[in-house]
Amino acid sequence: MLIDGTPMQTIRVVGDDVEVIDQTRLPHQLVLVRWRSVEDAARGIETMQVRGAPLIGVAAAHGVALAMRADPSDAGLAGAVARLARTRPTAVNLRWALEQMTTSLQYVAPTERASAATSAAQAMTDADVAVCRALGEAGLPLLEAVAERRKGPVRVLTHCNAGWLAAVDWGTALAPVFRAYEVGVPVEVWVSETRPRNQGALTAWELAGHGIDHRVVVDNACGHLLATGQVDVVLVGADRVAANGDAANKVGTYLKALAARASEVPFHVVAPLSTIDRQCLSGSGIPIEERDGEEVRRVSDGRTSVAVVATRTPVANPAFDVTPAALITSVVTEHGPVAASAAGIAGLPWPPDKPD
Amino acid sequence: MLIDGTPMQTIRVVGDDVEVIDQTRLPHQLVLVRWRSVEDAARGIETMQVRGAPLIGVAAAHGVALAMRADPSDAGLAGAVARLARTRPTAVNLRWALEQMTTSLQYVAPTERASAATSAAQAMTDADVAVCRALGEAGLPLLEAVAERRKGPVRVLTHCNAGWLAAVDWGTALAPVFRAYEVGVPVEVWVSETRPRNQGALTAWELAGHGIDHRVVVDNACGHLLATGQVDVVLVGADRVAANGDAANKVGTYLKALAARASEVPFHVVAPLSTIDRQCLSGSGIPIEERDGEEVRRVSDGRTSVAVVATRTPVANPAFDVTPAALITSVVTEHGPVAASAAGIAGLPWPPDKPD
Repeated sequence: MLIDGTPMQTIRVVGDDVEVIDQTRLPHQLVLVRWRSVEDAARGIETMQVRGAPLIGVAAAHGVALAMRADPSDAGLAGAVARLARTRPTAVNLRWALEQMTTSLQYVAPTERASAATSAAQAMTDADVAVCRALGEAGLPLLEAVAERRKGPVRVLTHCNAGWLAAVDWGTALAPVFRAYEVGVPVEVWVSETRPRNQGALTAWELAGHGIDHRVVVDNACGHLLATGQVDVVLVGADRVAANGDAANKVGTYLKALAARASEVPFHVVAPLSTIDRQCLSGSGIPIEERDGEEVRRVSDGRTSVAVVATRTPVANPAFDVTPAALITSVVTEHGPVAASAAGIAGLPWPPDKPD
Repeated sequence: MLIDGTPMQTIRVVGDDVEVIDQTRLPHQLVLVRWRSVEDAARGIETMQVRGAPLIGVAAAHGVALAMRADPSDAGLAGAVARLARTRPTAVNLRWALEQMTTSLQYVAPTERASAATSAAQAMTDADVAVCRALGEAGLPLLEAVAERRKGPVRVLTHCNAGWLAAVDWGTALAPVFRAYEVGVPVEVWVSETRPRNQGALTAWELAGHGIDHRVVVDNACGHLLATGQVDVVLVGADRVAANGDAANKVGTYLKALAARASEVPFHVVAPLSTIDRQCLSGSGIPIEERDGEEVRRVSDGRTSVAVVATRTPVANPAFDVTPAALITSVVTEHGPVAASAAGIAGLPWPPDKPD
């Protein structure tokens, strides 16, 4: 997508390295960093230089490719996959990407693995762009339907960052918004801050860069916005969708789903097929990552930080929550919307196709 | 209540001045400031040196007393009341306190008004302590009932700060928690951060000072805590309760109420009679204060601040929301719990008694 007129993507191969936008420095500074080893990639994922379910998967694939340049042995491959798998437990795309890489590389001779891994990671990168573009197309009718029955812009509420920064390009939940903007459907986005890591600031940065109207609110304000008729549709991404349609996403998503239901506002989960975990029968089977309490205790602008509570205050920091399928109007994949139910999910193609 | 063994209150008269704890500096520093004029008091209320519905009322009464020392004329009284009334639109206690002061002073000769106003403000201060102590007593059985059927501590979730910092002493929603601790009922408090102003840090500071177990979480985490059975009861304060039982409180309260209902966890509003506005028929009649967007854009520790979004990012900042009566298990006043309904509210004594 555009940043003040210049097209950008979140990750690319530059020579032997992988270059990523360091998202811990956004929205204040646009800093590109180079990963030279699988450990760079693993730490980059852990520290959230890159974040967002689709991008984590692609980044892990590039991490495997970096590992293969250093040690293409079977042990090197297994070690790289194990290291990368430990970075973020909730995102199913990470596991999926690592399985794809293992499948692609296990019968390749070690001498060929570096170039095969680079090709596989690049193919996954290109596929992610195509999938996200398709998510935009699949979600567009949901916004057009609102535009037809309402004067003024379609008012979308989103949570966290499910824009292009969460993927390679386009994004997931924001892809329909970018697409609507492209085809001239007026849109306006409520962006929830998304404590503790304030990924709403990334969403606002994306929307500002592309020229799309938006306003940021604290997470607490979203119930009020919904209850007072200021939201037409809620679009969120997902880190994992279970076989019954329950969806794990950034903590706080569930509260927005409850409020949307109470105000009869449609609530859609927009996520690629690779986010669906058919082995996971329901949301109660999804592990919820507990992150470092310093994220709660301090707020950072990427350079300095201030304490919001006294230094030794005990905290808890669950990073995700589960939205029950019953609160989800539809799950929108690159194949279009389906019901958030066992039947809806079962009807989706599997394994995920490589889009053209 | 205690701060590391020393009893403290939020506001007191010192000579001709009014001394308050500057809550914008907490939890990082305990700073006392002196108000010498009604303008000091008005700015102190606006900038949230003092906050919390009961304390705002008491502080406004002291503001009138400061005004009467400078200009005890009828015009001086009317001007002071008008200035103070403009400080915070949502809190009904503010209006109530100003009406009480006007009633007490309007037929007093101007030469007597300074001392009469000081006495009236002090009486209101003492009454607030008594009311909050009574709220603790009234809410205690709700916690005792949980303790009887459960091993381990009673796990309370609260929002914002409805502790003694929000009143003169004891607080409202936290008064039952302090009382339970006093009588040996084991309690443990989940404290929601309460963006944008992070009043959860004040609650954590109070609880730490008193020695009560607690953990701070981001507002987004509260749905997850409730859905995963980690909360036994939700206790919140209110800025205004309408005649039908709808309650306006700090923005985000409504989301917690929705999540409590979805998980069948009791949700009680603990607030003095002075918070009830019988002229206001339902929550839709309660004005919602829209505060400065800088509160959303930046996070401060009382001395320095960091930007969480880019400088010119458009924001909205509604400071309160309305929780419909249907989601409220009971409204607990100093006279005990009543149903959050027109019948429940109508059964409460009116006008508020002065407690002994």
